[in-house]
Amino acid sequence: MRNIQVSELDRRAVEDQDVEIVERKGLGHPDSICDGIAEAVSRGLSQLYLDRVGTVLHYNTDETQLVAGRAAPAFGGGEVLSPIYVLIVGRATSEYEGETLPVERTALESARAYLNETIPELDVGADVILDVKLGEGSGDLQDVFGEEGQVPMANDTSFGVGHAPLTETERIVLDVERSLNGEYAADHPELGPDVKVMGKREGDDVDVTVAAAVVDSYVDSMADYEAAVADVEAFVADLAADHTDRNVTVEVNTADDIEEGSIYLTTTGVSAEQGDDGSVGRGNRANGLITPNRPMSMEATSGKNPVNHIGKIYNLLSTEIAESVVDEVDGIRDLQVRLLSQIGRPIDEPHVADAQVVTAEGVTVADVEAEMEELIDDRLANVTDITRRVIDGDLSTF
Amino acid sequence: MRNIQVSELDRRAVEDQDVEIVERKGLGHPDSICDGIAEAVSRGLSQLYLDRVGTVLHYNTDETQLVAGRAAPAFGGGEVLSPIYVLIVGRATSEYEGETLPVERTALESARAYLNETIPELDVGADVILDVKLGEGSGDLQDVFGEEGQVPMANDTSFGVGHAPLTETERIVLDVERSLNGEYAADHPELGPDVKVMGKREGDDVDVTVAAAVVDSYVDSMADYEAAVADVEAFVADLAADHTDRNVTVEVNTADDIEEGSIYLTTTGVSAEQGDDGSVGRGNRANGLITPNRPMSMEATSGKNPVNHIGKIYNLLSTEIAESVVDEVDGIRDLQVRLLSQIGRPIDEPHVADAQVVTAEGVTVADVEAEMEELIDDRLANVTDITRRVIDGDLSTF
Amino acid sequence: MRNIQVSELDRRAVEDQDVEIVERKGLGHPDSICDGIAEAVSRGLSQLYLDRVGTVLHYNTDETQLVAGRAAPAFGGGEVLSPIYVLIVGRATSEYEGETLPVERTALESARAYLNETIPELDVGADVILDVKLGEGSGDLQDVFGEEGQVPMANDTSFGVGHAPLTETERIVLDVERSLNGEYAADHPELGPDVKVMGKREGDDVDVTVAAAVVDSYVDSMADYEAAVADVEAFVADLAADHTDRNVTVEVNTADDIEEGSIYLTTTGVSAEQGDDGSVGRGNRANGLITPNRPMSMEATSGKNPVNHIGKIYNLLSTEIAESVVDEVDGIRDLQVRLLSQIGRPIDEPHVADAQVVTAEGVTVADVEAEMEELIDDRLANVTDITRRVIDGDLSTF
Amino acid sequence: MRNIQVSELDRRAVEDQDVEIVERKGLGHPDSICDGIAEAVSRGLSQLYLDRVGTVLHYNTDETQLVAGRAAPAFGGGEVLSPIYVLIVGRATSEYEGETLPVERTALESARAYLNETIPELDVGADVILDVKLGEGSGDLQDVFGEEGQVPMANDTSFGVGHAPLTETERIVLDVERSLNGEYAADHPELGPDVKVMGKREGDDVDVTVAAAVVDSYVDSMADYEAAVADVEAFVADLAADHTDRNVTVEVNTADDIEEGSIYLTTTGVSAEQGDDGSVGRGNRANGLITPNRPMSMEATSGKNPVNHIGKIYNLLSTEIAESVVDEVDGIRDLQVRLLSQIGRPIDEPHVADAQVVTAEGVTVADVEAEMEELIDDRLANVTDITRRVIDGDLSTF
Repeated sequence: MRNIQVSELDRRAVEDQDVEIVERKGLGHPDSICDGIAEAVSRGLSQLYLDRVGTVLHYNTDETQLVAGRAAPAFGGGEVLSPIYVLIVGRATSEYEGETLPVERTALESARAYLNETIPELDVGADVILDVKLGEGSGDLQDVFGEEGQVPMANDTSFGVGHAPLTETERIVLDVERSLNGEYAADHPELGPDVKVMGKREGDDVDVTVAAAVVDSYVDSMADYEAAVADVEAFVADLAADHTDRNVTVEVNTADDIEEGSIYLTTTGVSAEQGDDGSVGRGNRANGLITPNRPMSMEATSGKNPVNHIGKIYNLLSTEIAESVVDEVDGIRDLQVRLLSQIGRPIDEPHVADAQVVTAEGVTVADVEAEMEELIDDRLANVTDITRRVIDGDLSTF
Repeated sequence: MRNIQVSELDRRAVEDQDVEIVERKGLGHPDSICDGIAEAVSRGLSQLYLDRVGTVLHYNTDETQLVAGRAAPAFGGGEVLSPIYVLIVGRATSEYEGETLPVERTALESARAYLNETIPELDVGADVILDVKLGEGSGDLQDVFGEEGQVPMANDTSFGVGHAPLTETERIVLDVERSLNGEYAADHPELGPDVKVMGKREGDDVDVTVAAAVVDSYVDSMADYEAAVADVEAFVADLAADHTDRNVTVEVNTADDIEEGSIYLTTTGVSAEQGDDGSVGRGNRANGLITPNRPMSMEATSGKNPVNHIGKIYNLLSTEIAESVVDEVDGIRDLQVRLLSQIGRPIDEPHVADAQVVTAEGVTVADVEAEMEELIDDRLANVTDITRRVIDGDLSTF
Repeated sequence: MRNIQVSELDRRAVEDQDVEIVERKGLGHPDSICDGIAEAVSRGLSQLYLDRVGTVLHYNTDETQLVAGRAAPAFGGGEVLSPIYVLIVGRATSEYEGETLPVERTALESARAYLNETIPELDVGADVILDVKLGEGSGDLQDVFGEEGQVPMANDTSFGVGHAPLTETERIVLDVERSLNGEYAADHPELGPDVKVMGKREGDDVDVTVAAAVVDSYVDSMADYEAAVADVEAFVADLAADHTDRNVTVEVNTADDIEEGSIYLTTTGVSAEQGDDGSVGRGNRANGLITPNRPMSMEATSGKNPVNHIGKIYNLLSTEIAESVVDEVDGIRDLQVRLLSQIGRPIDEPHVADAQVVTAEGVTVADVEAEMEELIDDRLANVTDITRRVIDGDLSTF
Repeated sequence: MRNIQVSELDRRAVEDQDVEIVERKGLGHPDSICDGIAEAVSRGLSQLYLDRVGTVLHYNTDETQLVAGRAAPAFGGGEVLSPIYVLIVGRATSEYEGETLPVERTALESARAYLNETIPELDVGADVILDVKLGEGSGDLQDVFGEEGQVPMANDTSFGVGHAPLTETERIVLDVERSLNGEYAADHPELGPDVKVMGKREGDDVDVTVAAAVVDSYVDSMADYEAAVADVEAFVADLAADHTDRNVTVEVNTADDIEEGSIYLTTTGVSAEQGDDGSVGRGNRANGLITPNRPMSMEATSGKNPVNHIGKIYNLLSTEIAESVVDEVDGIRDLQVRLLSQIGRPIDEPHVADAQVVTAEGVTVADVEAEMEELIDDRLANVTDITRRVIDGDLSTF
């Protein structure tokens, strides 16, 4: 039997705390660009190994470094002056049974495809230099979906933590960024993907602060720019209102100084074009948010191999467990799931799976304990689903 | 009057929680090497600007990337095969009133000096390639110690968090690494600086797990190696016993497989020589620890300019405030201090300084509130001390 | 009056010498790739400056370095494993009257466009990493086509040398490479652009040795490969026969060992994909050939700015002068034109223009001297035509 | 019997020609720095292979690229602002019988040692970044000093050419640079190693033009600078007078504009510190000179492996042969030796060794032919001496 402990969480639900801070760095933020590239490279390598070898070989590519470029944005369309430089760093097994595998080429292709899809205004090869340094991995063979349900062993003593449900503020922050970079951007090409959202709640007052890069070729004047910002503000306000009855204040590009002409105008939609460096693991946690009110793992999730890198797997799995428990078990106000690995043990058998719960009024831990344990046990048994879904790109890591 | 709020912390003191996890990546860990280089570069640039301009100009160098090398360690002395590659990344103002400042040269010199001091077995220039890409900063002048006590403005809306006192487990983890890399290494050159310490406490049982790189030129045989590891273990056990009456178990290099000859032997004392990449801000927080039981800021502290980079200043300051309050005020069992900045406001006037306290038995928040507020206010008033001490290298950032 | 000296060349015409060696590195040779990129970058920068500033500013980009990749060619189509790395190096003025010019971006775009056109099998960005380091130029303004026919000053004491007419062997070598990379490749996609041609003549026996990269995706078997090589051989033999009545022997890919399977098969048509590094100025001289029988300038012509870089201009101009004199003046068997600049003097007034001639039987130097001097004087007067044609891409530099 | 042909050279001796141009780029010239590094790396690798394997394995490192830095020289001592970047490029076998050899580390160490010795004012690691990209070689074993005098096979069809004796002008140019960078610099630390010497002879008038970098920390004023330049001029004039009775004019730093303060002042003694890029094979030929009056090989000699790289060996050997023939055989006024290899044949058996001679008055080719052939044959028989002396650093390649 797996070591699953359910207990009471010795604090108020985050939703009930006085002050709450939440942040999300959007897809085009320099740190997120690195997370995205690292994870795209990881998926590319996993797929390469599956195609060629039938199983995922050792790799770890959680170290992309971005050096900002220089740009001269201008109403109606400016230009990039000096390219962004991106160095993809990591380890990957390049020799297997006498065959040499195109790991560096695969990394470049994956990164390029990711950027083309995510930041369409960026001309990869002219606005961005993609470079790569992949050292040799250990060459150990790692079975992904082993015969007869064999489960990989943990590669380290590590720790993952997940939470559910998200608070209103968290939901707002997450949804604002995703919607802006999704449906909104589809209709509003003037909005670049470098959107950063900060939510601050004090009691029942929620401040949502958005920094949104505007793409210069779609705005011809300061009036256009101001209209673009106002549109974002209105959209965010509407969206936030769908999530909460609290008082919401929305501010977009508050650092702008319209008089001075100091505004958030970009040529490519990302601040990396001018002065903002980035790297992997410095931004959003595995659930897409930065939540100082909650325990967080420092482990970078993006770019790690999803087969036996326990930091990656347990961060994703603990979040999934928390979400599914909250979905299926009534009476939970806040749930925190921690998974602690034991090096050398199968990853479906953590040293401890520790679920701490704030129950709803009138519900006790004893009421939900059994159901929770069963659900958690089931999820652990299917841990390799995480691996599969990461490789398929179905799970976001940042 | 500054906005200082003292309230009760709505959880048990970490010391009293059932499970506690603490980690510290030692000086020679790849992420710490990057933190250390970034901070050394930052100090070098601050000093350069003070010497040449009289004040610190805009810079931000919190983005060093390390790409691991290849080595062939061997009893009696192996060798580095391919060098570690370190890319120093950031922004720095290089032109001031017509003078060009040697920012890249200063970065290289600072990084080299730091490595020479910290990892003496590493031959910088042969075992390590130091490269640098510093883009242009904004050129804004930033007064450090302005006339008549002028205080810089916050450059961002950001957040810092500090805690005190450290728990026994935290103190053990911190002290073990510092002592191993200090007095112990001085007498035991076979111990490399790449020491990683993990503490796990379940109730009153504390497990201290140490991964310690052994330098091959000082051990001639497996027996020597085993003796070196045993010495570390004994030292750590003694040291831990000084800090706690709880049951302490110490394990050193548990991943070794002596039979297979798979041991933690290195040529230079760091795992970066063979396969372990690293970057800034991925390891220890500003207080030197990774503490998932406590709120942590994701902000990288190392490498940022200490004049107006509010993330750096507030992480260091909140820790200092927490420590001094606990030192001077009786009856505090656990204290968490959060500082939230307000962009454009003087950094000594945070949006809120929020001190949450777990009082000792028989003490109430009301008993300590006034004294705490006064102390916090005083510390905020002297915020620029932080800047000065960072530049002087008196404050550790990782 | 310009200082033009016509005299007798104190050796036999190269056509009449006993032994003659001629070489041409084709478009896809690693050194030629670098020459081609450097010159494409030069044209791109010239055009940028003309478009933005109206005149060409100081730059010099004659230093591209190519680091070979790794590939695994295979009948029917292999793959690139590790990318070719190309570092574009040089100086370029990036600031002009307060405006910043996109010199690095322009360099990348120009290089990419050149590679896409010249080596179509190469996927730039996946098979090739293009990187760039352009330092600051001097910022001096250089008028290209100044008012009232103002001519730029020579930037150096330098030397150019040109010859005409080409010998039969030289014509064969030049034409073979151009035809293979032109009409032949258009019909035979299995022939890659990395074609190297060596001509050796001993008396009336001419050996033409061709090394021709075959593209793997167009040949499915060793038989296909052998047929491809045989086709090249037949084509070259026919072409050579058009140029000479001497005995011609043609050999293609003589280093092949069919038995061992050691053949010149490539995935992208260039040897840079696997192990052959390259750089600028190491291959063909300005007339497209390497001719140890004739004086050659060591100066790299490709990548230099064509406005006042005298080494570039005089190498191209001396060749043009030699060709036009031979075209228009009867009775010349071999002509060598040397131009020696004088630093600080207008480039149309060389320190000396020295034309040495081998006259045909029955013709004396006195017979042709006056006509030659007039032609040379006229060409010198129109030296800026060279600049214009280089920028327009009408003059090949390698 | 080896195929040795002695014949009359169908031109006047260079000494007797009307116009002669000779150039030498001194040790500190950017191209020479690259040549020197490439050759130092080559010697380091040869020695590594000899020490570890007992024989030299395949490598080729003739591709170093230097990207200039930025400096701010000033009387009394200026500073380097941005480092010079040097990329060592090539191929080297890194695996041999299961052992991995430290080829990249050896390259870095060799380059660093060379720079420290040659350009003492340069602080490698702060003023210069040394980077390296060595791809895999072919792994073929190459016997250097094989059993029973086995001679390596030629790796290519290539060509070497050598001359003797040097003309007066050539001797002056060579000696001026060597003496300035030797005895003179030893006594005059204000002279940097970046010395470029150009000799131009028209009839009996020899112009020697020297560009000599002055090191700023040794000159405190313009007067000091002018004195330093005058000292060089006097030294060169004396030295030239020892070599010739012709009229010699010496000019040093003619491009200086003392009024404008535009002088050749440097912080480190090399122009690479500010704006002058460099690469291998672009400067001096194997005999240390650039001599457009004589046939030259375009092949880069520096950095190539001296065991079977025929271009390197034949350039050095043909020069040696020419010199020894002229030393030992009376009556030779000018001698040109060409060696043409035959791929796959032992390197002591060239396709043809072709010695063309201008005899002294009263001497015929028939008079010297037999003695020359014997000497040439003997030298060819001992071709592997070249290899040995290159590895020992006894033969200069540039």
